[in-house]
Formats: sequence, structure tokens, C-alpha cells
Amino acid sequence: MINERMFGLGDEPSAIRELFSYGLKRKAEIGADKVFDFSIGNPSVPAPEALKRAVLELMEEPPCALHGYTPASGDPAVKQVVADSIRRRFGIEATPGNIYMTAGAAAAIAISLSAVTKPGDEVIVPSPFFPEYGVWIETAGCTRIEVPTLVPSFQLDVEAIEAAITERTSAIIINSPNNPVGAVYTREVLERLADMLERKQVELGHQIFIVCDEPYREITYGCEVPYVPCLYANTIVCYSYSKSMSLPGERIGYVYVSDRMTNAHEVSLAVAGAGRALGYICAPVLMQRAIAKCIDEPSNVEAYRENRRLLTEGLSELGYEYVQPDGAFYLWVKAFEDDAQAFSDRAKRFELLLVPSDSFGVGGWVRISYCVAPEVITGAMPGFKALMESYRQE
Amino acid sequence: MINERMFGLGDEPSAIRELFSYGLKRKAEIGADKVFDFSIGNPSVPAPEALKRAVLELMEEPPCALHGYTPASGDPAVKQVVADSIRRRFGIEATPGNIYMTAGAAAAIAISLSAVTKPGDEVIVPSPFFPEYGVWIETAGCTRIEVPTLVPSFQLDVEAIEAAITERTSAIIINSPNNPVGAVYTREVLERLADMLERKQVELGHQIFIVCDEPYREITYGCEVPYVPCLYANTIVCYSYSKSMSLPGERIGYVYVSDRMTNAHEVSLAVAGAGRALGYICAPVLMQRAIAKCIDEPSNVEAYRENRRLLTEGLSELGYEYVQPDGAFYLWVKAFEDDAQAFSDRAKRFELLLVPSDSFGVGGWVRISYCVAPEVITGAMPGFKALMESYRQE
Repeated sequence: MINERMFGLGDEPSAIRELFSYGLKRKAEIGADKVFDFSIGNPSVPAPEALKRAVLELMEEPPCALHGYTPASGDPAVKQVVADSIRRRFGIEATPGNIYMTAGAAAAIAISLSAVTKPGDEVIVPSPFFPEYGVWIETAGCTRIEVPTLVPSFQLDVEAIEAAITERTSAIIINSPNNPVGAVYTREVLERLADMLERKQVELGHQIFIVCDEPYREITYGCEVPYVPCLYANTIVCYSYSKSMSLPGERIGYVYVSDRMTNAHEVSLAVAGAGRALGYICAPVLMQRAIAKCIDEPSNVEAYRENRRLLTEGLSELGYEYVQPDGAFYLWVKAFEDDAQAFSDRAKRFELLLVPSDSFGVGGWVRISYCVAPEVITGAMPGFKALMESYRQE
Repeated sequence: MINERMFGLGDEPSAIRELFSYGLKRKAEIGADKVFDFSIGNPSVPAPEALKRAVLELMEEPPCALHGYTPASGDPAVKQVVADSIRRRFGIEATPGNIYMTAGAAAAIAISLSAVTKPGDEVIVPSPFFPEYGVWIETAGCTRIEVPTLVPSFQLDVEAIEAAITERTSAIIINSPNNPVGAVYTREVLERLADMLERKQVELGHQIFIVCDEPYREITYGCEVPYVPCLYANTIVCYSYSKSMSLPGERIGYVYVSDRMTNAHEVSLAVAGAGRALGYICAPVLMQRAIAKCIDEPSNVEAYRENRRLLTEGLSELGYEYVQPDGAFYLWVKAFEDDAQAFSDRAKRFELLLVPSDSFGVGGWVRISYCVAPEVITGAMPGFKALMESYRQE
């Protein structure tokens, strides 16, 4: 009598988690320094010192008020700080009423999709894509429509997206800087996307929302990350402090619904309603207040930049093909055979843990998370060499 | 094109939240000490000093490990501590595999209902009941079947529950100590419920789960709170530290699935799957670890006991009728007219904020939250006297 879908989701092996578990076991067997785990996206840069100071300061406040419920959308003072920061950084109007604090980007996306779609709708997902998008689209009762991005730039294929839009399309999820490929969508491509969507909205007579998944916004290597609500009114931003402040386990982020949306008030109410429906009461309050106290703390991107250099130079020299990442902390590397799972399995023989691209909806690649200690990258190079040679010998 | 159900849930005024907001406004108008706000269940007892010490200690640990993702079901070490505590306190087997850490009891219940029901199933709810149960039952695609509890004991009406069970019944939610009435279900009534459900399961050929909502377990005034998994194998415990440790805004709790359940492994997987489906990644990690460090810290019930005494003695003297609460921090008081909303509205004239029972699915009563400063109770007594007299004069 239990729910088959939920059982399936719980029972389904996640390639990323399986690889991570395998790595822990293998490290126990042969030593932690002999296994090169590039499987997960846990930030390797510590949370900022300012965050620690903020928590310690907060813990001196009266506990009943500090740990009490906030309104469902968050502490009004925190929402004010977040709104001010958006206004200041992106030059777009934002008030506390536009903000709904969430337990991270996952909650933000699950809530937003349930808020702006109806069962039976279609949601477009450019591929490769973060696998959980599919789960949350299904929770909203919608169908996932995958549209490949352009190889080798991995920019959006606006024409293909247009061709995929039907009268049932209610949203498209975009993620830039992108997990898993590290691409950052250019202003030019986002403007073309916006123009096309504006046209299709008129043609179809209904809204098409962009759900903008932005946990990697601060992790970039010099390029611009345009703020999508400035380009397209019907954008819902799903932000997280998981990567920018290295707090993935704390579950803190927000939804931003811009007033440029004609029905912003209704959409905000639907977001609040979806939060209720999915069992959220309020975002964890200590972390709400802590991030508000260090909202302008810059992310430490230098460690990731150095890792990117070490990894790309090393792999270049060995003759690997990859996508030069403009953001996030993932490298998308061409497998030496079409079967990415087989390539990932063979990499394990050389103690390299690489996530096969099948997890992201495409074949023939692996994802390398380079949010690791630099020694993991340098130590892995002999393994990468041997892996390549094992294919040459065939 | 937005989701009508979610819009409705966001737009729907919650009587409790409305009353609370009205109270804040009114306090600003006439002074905080002149308004007697009995609307919400925010603990008035501070979080234990041990919790603060735990957070301060944790903040000295290396930040990457401290704030990183835990497995979806929680930090294994935390789950071990929780399982050990269950085994020790209730004499029932419990291992980390039986525990799934959650963002509070709300997440635990929403997840559990989605895990063990299918769309079209029925979920029984003894009334009066916490209004969000209805929301989460609807999210799971199920129908809420209300069965009144027995007046004046507000114990479960086992015969009426039996009569309400159909071949579609997959779960019953019980909440003891109870919000809103303060009743604690006796061992005798729970044993009768268990026997009846065992019989009905055989008769119908499928499982019927008890989803046991337990945030008030530690807030009792001397009576036993039987541990339901010891009485009925197919029990899912949804626990929260919101009230016992005064951490409602932090969102920390767990689901416990006992191995006495024949399909415990499958149910645990379905719980994990439902967590994924609803957008949960892991329970907030700092609070996971903090509660593990002070798991045996006793709840400070004395303040609530004293409030209960002040309130019940005061109202008795004035001639109010109420249910003597054995647990939680709510008093269920008979309104002087059938229309609870009208009674609550009239109470406002005397600056008394009382939640009408309509919010809990029944008419003719109000709920008084006595998790307040004692001065609020003593200060409110002239208002309660005047409210009563206003009805006598009619």
C-alpha cells in the first residue's frame, strides 16, 4: 500500500551518491590519499569567518526570539536585507514582499515549479541538467521536455527551445553558471531567449516562466552573469547560499519574484502556498539571520580558480578534451567511449571517481567536481594518464 | 496559468496568523502590555543553555565538514544518538537506519503521508485537529476523513474510527499530547485503537499506518504518554524539537520507522523518496549536530505548568468551562455561543486574542495558547471577566 513513486525515488541509486559512498569505502581500504574523489559538489572553501562571527553574535541574543518561528516567507528584516542587496547589485527594484526565504535552492525550485505550473503542463529543461529537476517537475505533475544545449559551447539553443514550446509549456529551468558543464549563458543568448519567450507568450496567450537556478552565481572566472529578471519579466530567481557561502548542509536560500511580472502578487502568493503544501514552515531561522549579517561577504573564488588551472592544464597536457568552464566548480570532460558509465567504471580502476554524464541526461561525458583540495588534483594526474593509455592500448 | 491550489493556499487567511498580526498592530496602537495575545504556539521558555553551548562548540569545528551536506537521511552519528535515545527511553529497538532527520515535524508529516499513501486514498484525522494536516493530506492526493473525538474527554472514539475505515484508508494521524485540546491519549485507548487496526488490516488485506505527530511529547503534567510503536507495529513517529527544546524556527526533527513493521525497509526508502520529491536535501546540519549534543536535556515544563495553574484557576473562578489539559500548552475553552468566530471577535473588544475552534475543524470553542509570560495571563483576567459579563447581560 506504500507509494510506488516515492519508494522508487528512495530506492533508485543516484550515481553521484553511489560513487561518493564507494569512495568512502575505498579510502578506508587503501588510504584516503590514494583515492581521487571528484564525485560531489560539497564546497572545499570554508564558510567565511564573517558567517562564524554572525552566528556567535546571534547566539548571544534572547533565545525565544532568536529561535522562534518567522513568518512563512521569512524574517521581515532578513527579507529587507536580501531585497536591498538585489536592488544594489542588479539595479532592479526589490522589496521584502518580493522575497520568500527557503531551505536552499532545492526547496526554492520545487516550490516555484509547483506554484506556476498545473498538472499536465510541460517544463523545458536544457540538457545536460541537474537530475533532481526531473523529480521536482514530476512532483508538480508536469512532463519534462529536454532540449540539448549547443555543443561545444553548451549555450542555450534558442531555436530548439522555441520548437519545443507547446500550448502546455509553462516554464523553462535555466541554470547559469551551469552544473554540470560550467557554462555561463551570455547576455546575447539570454536576450534572444527573452525575445523569443515574449513572442511565444503573445502567440499562445499565456505566461511562460523562466525558473532561474542560481546557486553558482558568485562562482565565476571573470565573465558576466546577466541578471535574468532584468531581461525577462516572468523570471523567478531561485538562489542559494550553499556554494557562495559554503553552507550546503544548512539549507538557506530564497525565491525572488520581481514586480516587473504583471501578476507578481499572485505568483508570490502561489509560492507561499506551494511552500505550505510541501511542508515548509519557514527557512531555518538562525541561518536566515546569519546570512543577513554578512550578505556582502565576497565568495572566495580564488581556490576554485587555482583548481581549475591545475586540472585543465594537467588534462590538456595529457590530451583530454573538455569544456573550458566559465563558472561553477565542475569540469565536463569527454569520455573515451560513448558509454559514459563504462568509462567511469574503468576510471575507478585508477582510483578516479568521475560522474558519468548519463546522470545529467546525456551520454559520452563525465563530470569532474573540482571543489577539492589541490593535492587531489595533482595526485590524480598519474591516474588520468594511465586511464588514457588504457584506451590507447586497445 | 499559475497553480490555483497553491494560489489558494497562499491567499487563504489563517485565523491564527491573522490574529497574531492583528495583535502586533494593536500592541503598537495601545501598548504591548494592554493586549493579551494567546494566538500562537511559539514557546515562551528559552532554548536550553546546553543547546547554546553545543552551537558554540560546533562553530569551532572545521567549517567545510560542519556545514557540508549530510546524507539525505541525516548525519550517521546524529542518527545513532537519536536511535540510542529512542531505545533507552522507550525500550524498543532502533538503529540509525530507522531514523530520517527532517526539517521539523511539518516536513516529517508531509513526507510520511506522501510515502505511505497513494492518490485517492483516505486519511483519518480525529477532530479537532491541526489545520495543516488537511493541506498535507491533499498534497499526497488523498481525502481527509474527520472523526470527532469524544467530548468532554477528547480521547479517540475508536468505534467511530473503525466505522470510518474503508478499503481506501491508508493512514490515521494522531497527535498526543494534542494541539489544540491538550488531551493525552491513554494507554487503554491506544491499545484499543491498535487492536482494532490490527483486525481491520487483516480484514482489508492491507496496511493501515498510524502517523504519530509528537512535538508535545515532553510537555506533560504528570501523565504517561505511551510510545505508540510499542503498541502498534505500523506506526511512523514524526518528532520535532520545536517545543521540547524551544527551536520552532530552526526546523529540526525526525521520522522514526520501527523494524517491527514488516516492510520497514521499504517504508524507510519511500520516506527518503518522498523527502526528495518534496525538495528536501537534508535537515539543517548545524541543528542536527546541536540537538545530538544535548539529546538528554530535559524540557523545562515548570513554566508551562505554572501558566496552566494561573490560567485554569483564574478561568474556573470566573465560571469558564474548559478541558483540563494533560499536556502541550493549549487550553480548550467553551465559547459562550456556538459561533466561535463571533466569540473570538467579541473577545478582541476586551483585547483578548483567542483562536476560534473553526480553524481546527469544529465549532463552539476557542484555543488559548498559554506559552506566554505569566503577566499576560494575570493581566488578561479582567478582560475574561468583562467578556463573560458581556454575555450575561444579553
